[in-house]
Amino acid sequence: MQTDAILIKQLSETGVLRLTLNDVARRNALSEAMLGTLGEALASAGQDPAVRVMVLAANGPAFSAGHDLKELTRGRAAPDGGKAYFVRIMALCSAVMQSIVTCPKPVIAEVTGVATAAGCQLVASCDLAIAAESARFSTPGVHIGLFCSTPMVALSRNVAGKHAMEMLLTGDMTSAERAAEIGLVNRVTSEDGLQDAVLELAHKIASKSSMTLATGKQAFYAQREMPLSDAYDYAADVMVKNMLAQDAAEGINAFVEKRSPQWQDA
Amino acid sequence: MQTDAILIKQLSETGVLRLTLNDVARRNALSEAMLGTLGEALASAGQDPAVRVMVLAANGPAFSAGHDLKELTRGRAAPDGGKAYFVRIMALCSAVMQSIVTCPKPVIAEVTGVATAAGCQLVASCDLAIAAESARFSTPGVHIGLFCSTPMVALSRNVAGKHAMEMLLTGDMTSAERAAEIGLVNRVTSEDGLQDAVLELAHKIASKSSMTLATGKQAFYAQREMPLSDAYDYAADVMVKNMLAQDAAEGINAFVEKRSPQWQDA
Amino acid sequence: MQTDAILIKQLSETGVLRLTLNDVARRNALSEAMLGTLGEALASAGQDPAVRVMVLAANGPAFSAGHDLKELTRGRAAPDGGKAYFVRIMALCSAVMQSIVTCPKPVIAEVTGVATAAGCQLVASCDLAIAAESARFSTPGVHIGLFCSTPMVALSRNVAGKHAMEMLLTGDMTSAERAAEIGLVNRVTSEDGLQDAVLELAHKIASKSSMTLATGKQAFYAQREMPLSDAYDYAADVMVKNMLAQDAAEGINAFVEKRSPQWQDA
Repeated sequence: MQTDAILIKQLSETGVLRLTLNDVARRNALSEAMLGTLGEALASAGQDPAVRVMVLAANGPAFSAGHDLKELTRGRAAPDGGKAYFVRIMALCSAVMQSIVTCPKPVIAEVTGVATAAGCQLVASCDLAIAAESARFSTPGVHIGLFCSTPMVALSRNVAGKHAMEMLLTGDMTSAERAAEIGLVNRVTSEDGLQDAVLELAHKIASKSSMTLATGKQAFYAQREMPLSDAYDYAADVMVKNMLAQDAAEGINAFVEKRSPQWQDA
Repeated sequence: MQTDAILIKQLSETGVLRLTLNDVARRNALSEAMLGTLGEALASAGQDPAVRVMVLAANGPAFSAGHDLKELTRGRAAPDGGKAYFVRIMALCSAVMQSIVTCPKPVIAEVTGVATAAGCQLVASCDLAIAAESARFSTPGVHIGLFCSTPMVALSRNVAGKHAMEMLLTGDMTSAERAAEIGLVNRVTSEDGLQDAVLELAHKIASKSSMTLATGKQAFYAQREMPLSDAYDYAADVMVKNMLAQDAAEGINAFVEKRSPQWQDA
Repeated sequence: MQTDAILIKQLSETGVLRLTLNDVARRNALSEAMLGTLGEALASAGQDPAVRVMVLAANGPAFSAGHDLKELTRGRAAPDGGKAYFVRIMALCSAVMQSIVTCPKPVIAEVTGVATAAGCQLVASCDLAIAAESARFSTPGVHIGLFCSTPMVALSRNVAGKHAMEMLLTGDMTSAERAAEIGLVNRVTSEDGLQDAVLELAHKIASKSSMTLATGKQAFYAQREMPLSDAYDYAADVMVKNMLAQDAAEGINAFVEKRSPQWQDA
């Protein structure tokens, strides 16, 4: 653990990797450095058998303020007005967001403070999210002439159309309670109870077979982009392969024998 | 009505076919026998002009416990480790679930007790659902190493992504009240009021033109898989055909003349 | 402003165009005349730089009763039983609904009274909606043998499947409060507070860059029909183009300099 790093990594003995955004002075902006570091951490954790579940948290008053506007503005100085730089940074950001979705380990957002623009997108991109009562969410790009078009990809896959549009067109802050109502987070806890609630959820999931979690998470995002009939063909095939895996044989036997299962990778 | 059958069928004079899962000793597991019987009942009811609406209910403490794990385990004894059997049972289960969706008659789930795994999928696959206060829902495959991948096809088409993921990744029970909040069921009633609430809903729908219900139900599931522009082209064509049908002429005339319509198939 | 017109148009100095359905005697039915007038108003406003946001409101006890049944019935007198007429009116209605979605200006529904059938579709087609406490919504075509198949295209893109199906299969009225719970409207206000609430929302949005709003609104509806990966490629490209536009440069500079931005088209 490097406490001076912009991203703090802590792996528990139970397989919960806690990634804490720690660029407090810049409100955890998704600078090129932060995106690169976060992307590497996600890629590495995805391959690491010691990591069973990830928690994405943040230090300071902002969960994440989204793109680093000063960095983007500096990019304009290039002869092309910043175009090549903007292309690179948007591709990088979109790749990091998608790497949360494609990561074989479940990722839980633990949201404190304000999550704005691409910071809100980070929360929306996680599989699960729990927010402290005081957490707030917005897609405020419209205030500065830059619509939150990439954040909206994740946001609009979490909440109903009119709810997404209200956030996007007004840039207004959404409370944690409202975020839970509309599906942007799973639930809200007190400030003091947040870490314990997230850890309890993480431990619960970490106790499952990693093979099974990876199978299911991948299948979830794949099947929901398919027509119903294709989705069933695909999911039935996933079920058959899952049935033939060792962890399902063990899990079913343990259930029948009323004992705890021993997963292959545990 | 065969009271010793695993599926009890009762057709009211008003055209409400009540299908009651009745394999109480096996917690209404979706055994191969149950899936076959239920599939036949749905196919037959879909073609029977006397059936206008279906109610899917259950006897005993479990609405349905999903796949029959003992049966699946026995399947492993085959030389191929059960693969051919698993392929067949998953295809059968997916076909039965899709036959609820493609059935021209509306299907209402009347949920008492616990609806787990493919049992939860049954509820999600119905057009409408009302649950008793004590009903509970879960996709607990993750506990036994077998992710609820086919149940998730139906579940993820009912509820928001993070809500589906929470059920799938934790396997936790969801209360009836929460199921109503997230859209898995339409509403919750007291234990005592459930049958009456479902019957009232069923009678209301049974009083409509079966041609119209069949037209609309088919169009609902077809159009929602299309891009907006294609969906409008398709639905406009459905509306024109519907306008030219006898029941729409009669229905509109009856409305203008302030009398009850006489449907062709009533 | 023509107070005798079936559609009243009022443009504020702040760029809010208020379109008020005003065929009170016919409960603001979407007659061929009303659809034509509304379609022209939307097309014209979409091109008019003086219009920044639109509000769609209605006079009288009905927001809109949907298609004009008497007009449709008269259409049956044609030698083809009305087919060519029905084809034309359904295509016209679908085009008007889609023109709300494709209009580069945000459209807010201000809902008073009952919004039924294609009237409910109008609300569902708007980007945002606020309803008075007494507003009610239904898709009652099933009562007259004519399933609300085109309204369901918009409805099912606003609310969860079982919620849409309940409205469509029963034809029952949905209260304003329930409409807000299921996502058909953004929120509910008192009767007296409705106009102010809508105007405040409209003014807030009208203060943004029209270029930015147009970019974002178009991208919203485009990306949500794409698979996740395509949606990110598309949205990242939209972001790059948006960054290179004058209003984003100005907006970001104004933000950094803590002053109000001056949009190009303001």
